Amino acid sequence: MVSEYRLRRRVLFYEADPAGIVHFSWFFRYMEEAEHALWREAGLSIAPRRSEFVFPRINAAFEYHSPLRFEEEFDVHIRVAAITEKTMRYACDVTRGQTRIATGSLTIVCATQQRDEMKAASFPPEITAKFQVGP
Amino acid sequence: MVSEYRLRRRVLFYEADPAGIVHFSWFFRYMEEAEHALWREAGLSIAPRRSEFVFPRINAAFEYHSPLRFEEEFDVHIRVAAITEKTMRYACDVTRGQTRIATGSLTIVCATQQRDEMKAASFPPEITAKFQVGP
Amino acid sequence: MVSEYRLRRRVLFYEADPAGIVHFSWFFRYMEEAEHALWREAGLSIAPRRSEFVFPRINAAFEYHSPLRFEEEFDVHIRVAAITEKTMRYACDVTRGQTRIATGSLTIVCATQQRDEMKAASFPPEITAKFQVGP
Amino acid sequence: MVSEYRLRRRVLFYEADPAGIVHFSWFFRYMEEAEHALWREAGLSIAPRRSEFVFPRINAAFEYHSPLRFEEEFDVHIRVAAITEKTMRYACDVTRGQTRIATGSLTIVCATQQRDEMKAASFPPEITAKFQVGP
Repeated sequence: MVSEYRLRRRVLFYEADPAGIVHFSWFFRYMEEAEHALWREAGLSIAPRRSEFVFPRINAAFEYHSPLRFEEEFDVHIRVAAITEKTMRYACDVTRGQTRIATGSLTIVCATQQRDEMKAASFPPEITAKFQVGP
Repeated sequence: MVSEYRLRRRVLFYEADPAGIVHFSWFFRYMEEAEHALWREAGLSIAPRRSEFVFPRINAAFEYHSPLRFEEEFDVHIRVAAITEKTMRYACDVTRGQTRIATGSLTIVCATQQRDEMKAASFPPEITAKFQVGP
Repeated sequence: MVSEYRLRRRVLFYEADPAGIVHFSWFFRYMEEAEHALWREAGLSIAPRRSEFVFPRINAAFEYHSPLRFEEEFDVHIRVAAITEKTMRYACDVTRGQTRIATGSLTIVCATQQRDEMKAASFPPEITAKFQVGP
Repeated sequence: MVSEYRLRRRVLFYEADPAGIVHFSWFFRYMEEAEHALWREAGLSIAPRRSEFVFPRINAAFEYHSPLRFEEEFDVHIRVAAITEKTMRYACDVTRGQTRIATGSLTIVCATQQRDEMKAASFPPEITAKFQVGP
């Protein structure tokens, strides 16, 4: 069972804005990159082709503490904060060395998609068997 | 004085993900587009060249209610929710017709940037004179 | 029948990079936005849901003449340059007032997608009936 | 002296579009990521802070051979194809295992930027000393 993942990443040029710092929208993508790496660590893909399940996000938030700039290396640490029958919540810390950059959270829901209808569903056991709430 | 802005927008192809819906990170960009349009409505640019002030984001959040798909038209309604000496907070609703799509918030801080040091500062009067808390 | 489309657009904050100018990758997205608007002008969607056809890009190029900056307004003019049984080629000019910003081209192919196999196909008549080579 | 660089990368979720494949605009970003890694390999940053030089792109092109999908691993191989007094041209191959995905090219120019004026300039010797045309 997995409960956390740490991703090391470097800021790419197109992620920084005219103020010279990473645009705030990118942190949500960094958090998702770490989430998908966590799922791979659990032996899963979050979007296997022709799966009946999808995992739409129901909320996402970040607080920003310090700017991050082009070519800086940073860490994205994600951990499972809560699991319910149909939802999973993550907490996320972005750091550059000892510097706190940003703190985020993300909640996903398990859903089935038929045509354009998305409907909340219980996580299948092969998924819940792989995750546990982290430290 | 301005306090709100409504932006009409169509979903672009590259904004939708393999699940066929707008990737959750884009809503933060939609909210910012509406914010910048609000500032233009106030006769201001949020990033005039060679300005001493920058406006980094200190928190941002969205709750997602319904998916949004390629080529759908939607509205982004942003309003000023709170103003303090150094910060401004917005509330944001994304809707498609009568359907609630997402609800967000964003807080910015006024700062000066010298070399790589960002330091919180009071909003200059030419900015505070233009905004008021919305309905 | 349609043969060209002109899109007016404003540079968004997240499209500009730390050099203060629109990142070169965005021009490909601008060109595609104009392409999709051209298809809508023809009464078509380039990606209707559950269509058997997809239109992958087989080549794309831009030459850059002048930089474009945050909040500047610009025009994207796309026109049909050539149509064959299975491909369509566009030419594209990006301008800001009288200033030439960039010149691009894009070729798409008509394809059917079954599972993960994409296979070139003839454009269906309801599509070819709508486009002609532009001026 | 460096002349080429090979970057291994995995497709991220937000890079794939509703057709399930990497959006064509991303290849230009992949090529640039490899370029910046090449410069780091040469002991340089392409955008050091407070540098007088910038390196705008004057043309970029890709041909697409096969689609690339979410979570697939791929290689971006960039090499220096030509160097002149003021320009450098790269050639780029994107592959997944033995499969050719895309073939690109990119030309950059050395420029100085004063206020909003960009002006072509000769590459400084500390840069030209580091690159040579690749195999």
